[in-house]
Amino acid sequence: MHHFQDLATAFTKKFDVDHFPAEPQTLYGPNRYFIGLGGKRIRPVMCLMGNELFEEILPDAWLVSNAIELFHNFTLIHDDIMDHAPLRRGMQTVHEKFGESTALLAGDVMLVAAYDYLNKVSGKYVFAINSLFNQTARQVCEGQQLDMDFEKRGDVKLDEYLHMITLKTSVLIAASLKMGAIIGGAGERNQNLLYEFGKKLGLAFQVQDDYLDAFGDPEKFGKKPGGDILSNKKTFLQIHALENTTGSEKKRLLELIAGNESNKVEETIAIYKSSGVDQWAESLKEKYIEEAYKHLDDIAVLSIRKKPLKELADFLLNRDH
Amino acid sequence: MHHFQDLATAFTKKFDVDHFPAEPQTLYGPNRYFIGLGGKRIRPVMCLMGNELFEEILPDAWLVSNAIELFHNFTLIHDDIMDHAPLRRGMQTVHEKFGESTALLAGDVMLVAAYDYLNKVSGKYVFAINSLFNQTARQVCEGQQLDMDFEKRGDVKLDEYLHMITLKTSVLIAASLKMGAIIGGAGERNQNLLYEFGKKLGLAFQVQDDYLDAFGDPEKFGKKPGGDILSNKKTFLQIHALENTTGSEKKRLLELIAGNESNKVEETIAIYKSSGVDQWAESLKEKYIEEAYKHLDDIAVLSIRKKPLKELADFLLNRDH
Repeated sequence: MHHFQDLATAFTKKFDVDHFPAEPQTLYGPNRYFIGLGGKRIRPVMCLMGNELFEEILPDAWLVSNAIELFHNFTLIHDDIMDHAPLRRGMQTVHEKFGESTALLAGDVMLVAAYDYLNKVSGKYVFAINSLFNQTARQVCEGQQLDMDFEKRGDVKLDEYLHMITLKTSVLIAASLKMGAIIGGAGERNQNLLYEFGKKLGLAFQVQDDYLDAFGDPEKFGKKPGGDILSNKKTFLQIHALENTTGSEKKRLLELIAGNESNKVEETIAIYKSSGVDQWAESLKEKYIEEAYKHLDDIAVLSIRKKPLKELADFLLNRDH
Repeated sequence: MHHFQDLATAFTKKFDVDHFPAEPQTLYGPNRYFIGLGGKRIRPVMCLMGNELFEEILPDAWLVSNAIELFHNFTLIHDDIMDHAPLRRGMQTVHEKFGESTALLAGDVMLVAAYDYLNKVSGKYVFAINSLFNQTARQVCEGQQLDMDFEKRGDVKLDEYLHMITLKTSVLIAASLKMGAIIGGAGERNQNLLYEFGKKLGLAFQVQDDYLDAFGDPEKFGKKPGGDILSNKKTFLQIHALENTTGSEKKRLLELIAGNESNKVEETIAIYKSSGVDQWAESLKEKYIEEAYKHLDDIAVLSIRKKPLKELADFLLNRDH
């Protein structure tokens, strides 16, 4: 069994091959550029860890890990087009550097490359893996569409936001773990428990992400706080605040969202604090972590095998214990 | 054995199901709209005919036909974004009607739906079918990228154009036939002959398409001639004319391409005629037809089985005999 850092190193090394033909360079160069920007490679490592929870890592898990990472990069390239994002990991996005049409096509062909890895999976698992992969890919697209739909609405409820975040973020984490479990020979019950663990982990991570944007330590966090507030992004914080403030506080919050006042970030954060959004978010994150761990605990393997997954969760969720 | 018209009718009926979940309607509605615009459904029918050349049509061929048609529609939705096309089949394109971001995502999830049909193919063929499908999808993307690259260049040679058109148009026709042949149990030699038949058929069809834009009968053709000339599209005609005119004729042709003179279409067509481009194109089309038929003739099945494919080719290539 391996620590996730060791698996991340091993994956990064194995993934460092050319996934595309040489020509046309105008199509594949942009994909090489984007993959070269790096990333934490969390999702493919989760597939490897899902496998190793039950069995030594098998060759199929490496194939599926490649597919997952290519899929994730495909979604980032296309999301960046939709979000008109100029930067990704501090570098130009594909559409900024190479134009929107090429970014669109480069993403398309990245998805095809992902499927080509999946096609090489052993016959025993290929149907189950592809079914879950397709379901997940569909859900991730649905999540992105809902995210765009919500941008135009001022009345998004917490359960709608939860549903969107689950699709857009959590299911890929959950499915990465489950695909590993399938390859590792896990029974259906264990597969599904691991999937639920991943889903809750994804939600806890998103709550934390939203929380840190408003309340994170700028030194530790590495970027100026309030980016989500400035761009009026729907977050756990904004939605809870809108649902739980009343009277003049709610009125002021709506004014701040509608306008671009110079103290928008500071005053929004002040309202979040006075209405207890920060504490609510902290306890919501803890709730999801507990639920995640409960599912992990229920998986019928020796608890020592679960240690690397717990370490990864603690690392992602910034927990020191 | 069936005529292609009968298979087209049967396919259209079978394809008329909902390929997508109900929600979110904002994502799947656009896909239903686009599929509802119809189309000749040539490629899926070719898959069925490729199967029936060797064997009764099997359930797998219907699955693959669905995948092919969804893939083709995915490419159209994304190509329309890249080409800024306002209309498709006389109706608004997806990005015109629903916005670019939704069109991008709708195309993505259409491709995923195509792969989900492929995943249901019997274990015996699933690897071969997916391999060919992935290779073809990659090539179609490459063709589209080359097409965009060529738009920026004035020195595209005939062999480069041929390569681009082969990727962008011919390989999907060829692969549709071959996927049917694989399911029909054809041997490798027969599969490859059918693939080459499809490739040459695709080229002949493209030559005809380019030819009709300049020389077609407007009454029969249903649209004003010269659309390609007005938009400076690279065509067999333009490239051959640029390679085979000299002196003042070539100079004038380059001026016409660079400008937007009121008689651009008429004068370009006049140069095409005086430099013999029309006859060259007609004989090039005949050459590809002959090569296509030679490959079809070489396939080792009773010639009566080839009749529907010959009829389809004659129909597509406007031949009355």
